Amino acid sequence: MIVVMKSGASAKQIASVITRIEEDGYAAHLSEGDHHTIIGVVGESPTPLVEDNYATMDNVDKVVRISEPYKLASRTFHPLDTQVPLNGCKMGSEKVLTIAGPCSVESREQIIEIACAVKEAGATALRGGAFKPRTSPYSFQGHGEEGLKWLAEAREVTGLPIVTELMDPALVDMVTEYADVIQIGARNMQNFTLLNAVGKSQHSVLLKRGMSSTVKDLLMAAEYVLSHGNTRVMLCERGIRTFETATRNTSDINAIPVLKQLTHLPVVFDPSHATGKWEYVESLSLAAVAAGADGLIIEVHPEPDKAMSDGRQSLKPEKFAELVTKVRRVAEAVGRKA
Amino acid sequence: MIVVMKSGASAKQIASVITRIEEDGYAAHLSEGDHHTIIGVVGESPTPLVEDNYATMDNVDKVVRISEPYKLASRTFHPLDTQVPLNGCKMGSEKVLTIAGPCSVESREQIIEIACAVKEAGATALRGGAFKPRTSPYSFQGHGEEGLKWLAEAREVTGLPIVTELMDPALVDMVTEYADVIQIGARNMQNFTLLNAVGKSQHSVLLKRGMSSTVKDLLMAAEYVLSHGNTRVMLCERGIRTFETATRNTSDINAIPVLKQLTHLPVVFDPSHATGKWEYVESLSLAAVAAGADGLIIEVHPEPDKAMSDGRQSLKPEKFAELVTKVRRVAEAVGRKA
Amino acid sequence: MIVVMKSGASAKQIASVITRIEEDGYAAHLSEGDHHTIIGVVGESPTPLVEDNYATMDNVDKVVRISEPYKLASRTFHPLDTQVPLNGCKMGSEKVLTIAGPCSVESREQIIEIACAVKEAGATALRGGAFKPRTSPYSFQGHGEEGLKWLAEAREVTGLPIVTELMDPALVDMVTEYADVIQIGARNMQNFTLLNAVGKSQHSVLLKRGMSSTVKDLLMAAEYVLSHGNTRVMLCERGIRTFETATRNTSDINAIPVLKQLTHLPVVFDPSHATGKWEYVESLSLAAVAAGADGLIIEVHPEPDKAMSDGRQSLKPEKFAELVTKVRRVAEAVGRKA
Amino acid sequence: MIVVMKSGASAKQIASVITRIEEDGYAAHLSEGDHHTIIGVVGESPTPLVEDNYATMDNVDKVVRISEPYKLASRTFHPLDTQVPLNGCKMGSEKVLTIAGPCSVESREQIIEIACAVKEAGATALRGGAFKPRTSPYSFQGHGEEGLKWLAEAREVTGLPIVTELMDPALVDMVTEYADVIQIGARNMQNFTLLNAVGKSQHSVLLKRGMSSTVKDLLMAAEYVLSHGNTRVMLCERGIRTFETATRNTSDINAIPVLKQLTHLPVVFDPSHATGKWEYVESLSLAAVAAGADGLIIEVHPEPDKAMSDGRQSLKPEKFAELVTKVRRVAEAVGRKA
Repeated sequence: MIVVMKSGASAKQIASVITRIEEDGYAAHLSEGDHHTIIGVVGESPTPLVEDNYATMDNVDKVVRISEPYKLASRTFHPLDTQVPLNGCKMGSEKVLTIAGPCSVESREQIIEIACAVKEAGATALRGGAFKPRTSPYSFQGHGEEGLKWLAEAREVTGLPIVTELMDPALVDMVTEYADVIQIGARNMQNFTLLNAVGKSQHSVLLKRGMSSTVKDLLMAAEYVLSHGNTRVMLCERGIRTFETATRNTSDINAIPVLKQLTHLPVVFDPSHATGKWEYVESLSLAAVAAGADGLIIEVHPEPDKAMSDGRQSLKPEKFAELVTKVRRVAEAVGRKA
Repeated sequence: MIVVMKSGASAKQIASVITRIEEDGYAAHLSEGDHHTIIGVVGESPTPLVEDNYATMDNVDKVVRISEPYKLASRTFHPLDTQVPLNGCKMGSEKVLTIAGPCSVESREQIIEIACAVKEAGATALRGGAFKPRTSPYSFQGHGEEGLKWLAEAREVTGLPIVTELMDPALVDMVTEYADVIQIGARNMQNFTLLNAVGKSQHSVLLKRGMSSTVKDLLMAAEYVLSHGNTRVMLCERGIRTFETATRNTSDINAIPVLKQLTHLPVVFDPSHATGKWEYVESLSLAAVAAGADGLIIEVHPEPDKAMSDGRQSLKPEKFAELVTKVRRVAEAVGRKA
Repeated sequence: MIVVMKSGASAKQIASVITRIEEDGYAAHLSEGDHHTIIGVVGESPTPLVEDNYATMDNVDKVVRISEPYKLASRTFHPLDTQVPLNGCKMGSEKVLTIAGPCSVESREQIIEIACAVKEAGATALRGGAFKPRTSPYSFQGHGEEGLKWLAEAREVTGLPIVTELMDPALVDMVTEYADVIQIGARNMQNFTLLNAVGKSQHSVLLKRGMSSTVKDLLMAAEYVLSHGNTRVMLCERGIRTFETATRNTSDINAIPVLKQLTHLPVVFDPSHATGKWEYVESLSLAAVAAGADGLIIEVHPEPDKAMSDGRQSLKPEKFAELVTKVRRVAEAVGRKA
Repeated sequence: MIVVMKSGASAKQIASVITRIEEDGYAAHLSEGDHHTIIGVVGESPTPLVEDNYATMDNVDKVVRISEPYKLASRTFHPLDTQVPLNGCKMGSEKVLTIAGPCSVESREQIIEIACAVKEAGATALRGGAFKPRTSPYSFQGHGEEGLKWLAEAREVTGLPIVTELMDPALVDMVTEYADVIQIGARNMQNFTLLNAVGKSQHSVLLKRGMSSTVKDLLMAAEYVLSHGNTRVMLCERGIRTFETATRNTSDINAIPVLKQLTHLPVVFDPSHATGKWEYVESLSLAAVAAGADGLIIEVHPEPDKAMSDGRQSLKPEKFAELVTKVRRVAEAVGRKA
């Protein structure tokens, strides 16, 4: 940490900061400039450095953090890529994996039909929501446990592992009984109670970035899960909220190479939510793979104009099959497989 | 709802949309322009209109919603101001109320000391967190139930009602046992499991706006609570996330008159989080009251450089007392009391 | 400036940075931590420090700027408030001044009628655009020099000084011939050719913040004008672009105390553009004054539904008169006049 | 256009809107719902519809625009792709073209050296700034006309056409004398004086998107140039400003397929500004090509740590050469050439 003093700081104020640093168990290195005095904080101590406490001291101009606040998620401490097993493959390996399925599980027939279609097209796993976080209390909220059972049936028929969302920490046992991967939705990325619950479960997790969360916030959320010894964490970029209204969200493709640099965890991209319109899903899927994404998660529905949710951004199965073929070509062009 | 067809839409495509409207139980009104055909959807039906389904039909250009998706929160259907009782006063009445206290409950002594100080300064209620949502799993997470007990003691000493955050739906009974008002934090504004839990509790709720939530999202979140028959809902603007980094968040003061127009629920402003720096808290408190806020919630700490959280944005008690005096003057200038 | 090395930086890489610092004419202070080495750059040199050059050196983690990049605009170097003369008053003094008038000068009659109305209501200056920056080339672009002449006539009739926008650096002589204050619009805040032209003119300037400019960007734009020795600069917050669509822009009221802290220049607030809807203009005007704004600039039109531009956000003269009365009360409540 | 009345609108208020529509020369189609009356505005008239005027009428809830405000830029009216000639190739054709060079022209030797290097690597055109828009008045502002002369020399040596920025409308003749393509920078995207000047020049234009401009704003800016009969317009996505600080800007890759759908103009992507860090430039270049970009514009400098501007985001020539090879592979994977 570095403490920068304001230009008018007195010797006494500087001394107070140094005393505080030493009380916290660290050493202070002083650099006196013509206008500003800079105090470097070095060493190790059991007392965590609380930047806010220093920032509020008299005539402190600013406090600059040096080391990243995440440790278990950091590539600095874990240089090798983490790979999360999925259906005999590994997310985070050479092969780009695709998770596909409807936004909501609508019926037994629907989910089995889609599961068969996405499997045939080449998907590695099946997505589908039994518990749906909806902006409106009047919208369809999902079929709950019955939906989970239909998902399990679809897995039995196709062999595809199930990725499904958990919203309620009290239901972690129920959902893990049916699901292979627990999805934490964007709106719950900083629901720390939920993160602790899935951390403890030791189940594979697909952690979606909150719509206004920074990359650093996402890594801190992952750190919650990792801090329970659960290393099966896949990060998912799904678009952020900006001023642009031409698309539902703004795909932050920059985040893909940024995350690959900062963390060892696999990075999945969700072009359906990141654009909100099915006609842009293909372009963005290819872009994400070209940028280095390890996987894709895509909404597929045979009748988007009848879908109970997210019809506007769902691909029909035949479009999805075309997409998988194109993804394969781009993956190969950047030295990977799909 | 209005469906706008693309300029090249065929008669058959238009007919399909009309058929769908009628199947859903509504009537279709056609306006044919030179370039665009517009289809108005009118009437009532038990089938909810899912905009996405229409938006995905062939040659539909866009779908425009007419009526607001919130009903119980809407001023259209409830023209009179809702007032939430607080310590013998009412939030949403002529009098501007102030809730004050530390970010975290740190010890029995600390919370009692602060409670006495803010009471003397004129606060109506005491805030303080026993369960803290922290970005980092390594930061102080709050004292839990012990913290709630200290809050209850502070209430006994001062008579101030307690406003404290609930993060875990499983703890709703525990927290409501001690708290007078349950705070839903910004990160949990769309934690629908939690909203349902506090809705059912019938306890007073202070619902903070998510940092990237629109005003409409906030009203939809309130609708979740209201839909359980719990009308004791106070909305809280606490700053939104933008590109500006000079302050922790950007205070959306516009939201105050917008909310007063759209909803009958009281509107509270939190200048501490909205600015992130104590030196701006006074200016923004006065601004919010001038703009029509019904209340303020402000972080106060006697030793900000020792605070376990949010020291940078906490006022010392004497500054808080000055602030209350100034708030009173501005409140009177706009025809209110404080 | 501080250079933070990555944890793996070699002694040779650190030495390269130090050599570079010395070549640039500065001294390097080294703080070696367990994980990170920090190099403080101190001293004075004619060679400007280009952060990017250091940031791109091997194993440099980040470069942190210490001193603000603006000097003439900075309160550190000019602690006393700058006051800009306006109609016998001073913007930046105890008295809160109001500039009012239509978005566009539409006709001789219109501008004289409005000038009389706003003068009677208590405005200090008249605004009105003769050159209009319009998003669409097909929208009304202003009456040009004829509009300026009508403004001059309105000044003759009412005595109100004229605030009008300049878009073309080639027209600086023409516009300064008629105008008392040159307005630089939000879209031109970083039109450096224009900033240099008005800087050289030595004319009073109202510099509007760009809709995605930070407070720092705004101060750097002011620095361009100030660097020509022109100190008659008024800054104007007019709302920033965010994800919120309930209002045209988001009023950044935080920017008012932030600017008052960082700079000695007067700060004006424009509630008309900052909200985009006339019904919120009063609330935001009062909020801005409560937060410490030195002045307001407000759009007024007798027939908003006939206005050639910005009708949606224009107050009728009688509403404006009410507003001025209320502004006066709030100004007094915060120890000022209006 | 559609006018939606509030639920309480009276018959008289509805009649006023209809009268106004008819006065403006259009026909009104009425759809009366249970809660809302919707008025469709159809037909043609020489009087442009000013939405704001209707929005401000009594009990109007909202006004919805139907047709896009841009015409010459719209694919609806010009379905075929526009191709802009560049060095014997065409931007907007099957072949993905790359423009490369330094941020600033620093010296005769520098620009010739880089021109040779990027030519050898496969670039189609040379970029380099002689007039630099800098946030600070104290930063290097470019070598001006001398820089243009060095660019012309570099063209003579390599045959590469020149892309360079114009900031001052008064210099349009000077810059077009040397440049093959005039670049309009992000900060000047809504400098309408400048857009009119380059429109009239009939010179090829590379129009960069403003950092807080929507896709629609960009198309309206292009419309200014096109309205002068100048159809040689290339659009350039260069990142937008968001809350994320891990990168300099956020690449809006969504904008690529959105623009290809809405307009016939070619779309270029600038990964250097869109990320701000050279290590992410390759990933984003490949992503943009996979998403359908017609071209790339990339900053290249042999000694980034000596660059007078943008060193942090500049590729060394050998990295650029590798990038061109990879771009070719991805282009082929999506059915194009490079």
